[in-house]
Amino acid sequence: MKIESVEFYYLAMPEVALIADGSQDALVVRIDAGGLTGWGECEASPLVSVAAFIAPMSHAACQPVSASVIGRDLHAPDDIRAMAAAVAYNSMDLLQASHTWSGIEMALWDLLGKARSEPAWKLLGYDRAYPKTPYASVLFGETPEITLARARDIVCQGFRAAKFGWAPFGETLDGDIAQLDAAREGLGPDGVLLVDAGQVFVEDVEAAAARLEAMNRNRVTWFEEPFAGHALAAYRALGQRAQGGKVGLAGGEAAHNRHMAEHLIEYGGVQFIQIDCGRIGGLGPAKQIAAHAVSKGVVYVNHTFTSNLALSASLQPFAGLEVHEICEYPTGLSTLARDLTRRRIAPDENGMINVPDAPGLGVEICEDALTRYHVPIEIMVRNETLFAS
Amino acid sequence: MKIESVEFYYLAMPEVALIADGSQDALVVRIDAGGLTGWGECEASPLVSVAAFIAPMSHAACQPVSASVIGRDLHAPDDIRAMAAAVAYNSMDLLQASHTWSGIEMALWDLLGKARSEPAWKLLGYDRAYPKTPYASVLFGETPEITLARARDIVCQGFRAAKFGWAPFGETLDGDIAQLDAAREGLGPDGVLLVDAGQVFVEDVEAAAARLEAMNRNRVTWFEEPFAGHALAAYRALGQRAQGGKVGLAGGEAAHNRHMAEHLIEYGGVQFIQIDCGRIGGLGPAKQIAAHAVSKGVVYVNHTFTSNLALSASLQPFAGLEVHEICEYPTGLSTLARDLTRRRIAPDENGMINVPDAPGLGVEICEDALTRYHVPIEIMVRNETLFAS
Repeated sequence: MKIESVEFYYLAMPEVALIADGSQDALVVRIDAGGLTGWGECEASPLVSVAAFIAPMSHAACQPVSASVIGRDLHAPDDIRAMAAAVAYNSMDLLQASHTWSGIEMALWDLLGKARSEPAWKLLGYDRAYPKTPYASVLFGETPEITLARARDIVCQGFRAAKFGWAPFGETLDGDIAQLDAAREGLGPDGVLLVDAGQVFVEDVEAAAARLEAMNRNRVTWFEEPFAGHALAAYRALGQRAQGGKVGLAGGEAAHNRHMAEHLIEYGGVQFIQIDCGRIGGLGPAKQIAAHAVSKGVVYVNHTFTSNLALSASLQPFAGLEVHEICEYPTGLSTLARDLTRRRIAPDENGMINVPDAPGLGVEICEDALTRYHVPIEIMVRNETLFAS
Repeated sequence: MKIESVEFYYLAMPEVALIADGSQDALVVRIDAGGLTGWGECEASPLVSVAAFIAPMSHAACQPVSASVIGRDLHAPDDIRAMAAAVAYNSMDLLQASHTWSGIEMALWDLLGKARSEPAWKLLGYDRAYPKTPYASVLFGETPEITLARARDIVCQGFRAAKFGWAPFGETLDGDIAQLDAAREGLGPDGVLLVDAGQVFVEDVEAAAARLEAMNRNRVTWFEEPFAGHALAAYRALGQRAQGGKVGLAGGEAAHNRHMAEHLIEYGGVQFIQIDCGRIGGLGPAKQIAAHAVSKGVVYVNHTFTSNLALSASLQPFAGLEVHEICEYPTGLSTLARDLTRRRIAPDENGMINVPDAPGLGVEICEDALTRYHVPIEIMVRNETLFAS
């Protein structure tokens, strides 16, 4: 089948607040080919990712993403890989290209799975999908008391693991210690506690290391993104400071290609590699990273803070890895992210998350949401409309 | 002085051809503050970089670049560094941000230099600027005969060094050998010969290594970008294969932050680190990389394939490094890139390039060119015009 059209839907909440909630907008991708439709989602900045699809060519190595997708044939997984290679080469100087391509790549696996009546994880080479233990992913409260209440609520919802992240974490050492103590108290002695610093220490190893004692005392399983995504030397140095303790380093969501994630393992020394399929280039490179993680004794985890479409996509690349059994499961989604899909991926009676056992990504889009949250945009170049929706 | 406005000028040739000539379009940045004007240039994909400046916020860690620039104070170099840190943090999930910021950062040094009547290289901490030996930077000819003629022409123009790059290099081994032989023949025995593979081998170490024998025989000084910008392991492996020969590896133009360039040195093992100030985040991080290169015994070189505005910016970060004396000097510029600046940076009577000894970047913009090559664009979101020019 030939790729006939790639459409983008920019969706947003009526108000986007200055908080680290990544579900406040979305860029949904729809691809039509051979009478079938595939869906995907790009992570963040919809306007910029749309621009990267339709921008006029700057030169041969800076072509828009569309140049490597429209009109191509799609019959097998290798066709998706060939398109990925074409985007990487033809758009090498267009930085945003990998974020744009990520949502397209997801939609292509969805399409191919529907054409073959197979889930994407089967097309990726797995024989079966194992249930994952979800961790509830929430932001730290403004005060330790709010964090305590959030942790208790998570336990009441039946979760065995929780991640707290972002501001005010990193502002003061005493404040952070109080937050960590509150989170542990709220989760109780048995809950798995994860912490996401949201890059707040940039590359200040001492500042990050000052939190290790309280993390060890509170049995924090991982310390996520202490530093900027590229600060491999800082990761390495903090890992050495953490040796002998309980805390492992986690990171990888910023990676926009397979190499970056592998470098975080090789040179940064993380124990948990977190991949966002909406940024890394989709399911194909994520599956390669999962295999690499297995070979290095590193745990693969999805990074997902948006809709169930993105969640399903992000679970596929490690669906068949039984021992990599923890998964991010955003619980504080905006109504937009909740309304986008018809049937939601929810914990089963054992509290586990099951990757959909249905063709493609196995998630049905609620087209009504595409209208309700639609953000109209129009991009004109030389008085010609290159994009309007 | 307070940053009052940041304006973008999207310029392009009437026709943009499918060749690796990066001077076919340009995104020029104009910043006004305190009655002064500073100019900068972002590398490639003008529409996408403009979108990254004005895009609606997705969430707190995905704000448009404008959020960290407009209304800020500019009094000293540290103010520029503080803005760079703000962009990196507030726009961490907006991949294109560093390309957009690069042109802004240049314009801020230009502004600050004008305010202090000092060249940017002085503000960066150098006491004096040393002349550089330019290499003529051109594309390989379609045939070895054309490459031979180009090489001879470069010698006639008085250049002592030349770089040939991109297609058809990489297509066939025999063809490449013929191209290398032709380039050496045309340059004569004394000319410095450089080769740019334009990432064509992706991460195929064997394919790249097959070219080493002909490169050694033709005394090629560097083998640039054999692989994708992130393929550090491939760089490392090829470097080991090249040991004992004459050819050094070069790369770095794809780096969009300081860490990426440092990793290419540390883990990729390049001997020449090539920085494009229009991508790396401007002069500040480029200067840090130059210092790092000195400490590691690696040669710093600019990457420039656009206007003399970008050329001046790219020379500033290593102006004071006497022994890092080779510089890229694009000779086949489009009329747009040539017309953009009033006085051109040309080789002096000794064939050397001198960094302008004038306030800021020391390059005067020809405002007529801003009109002549102007590409009108308009970006509307929710029926409101966010950008029009």
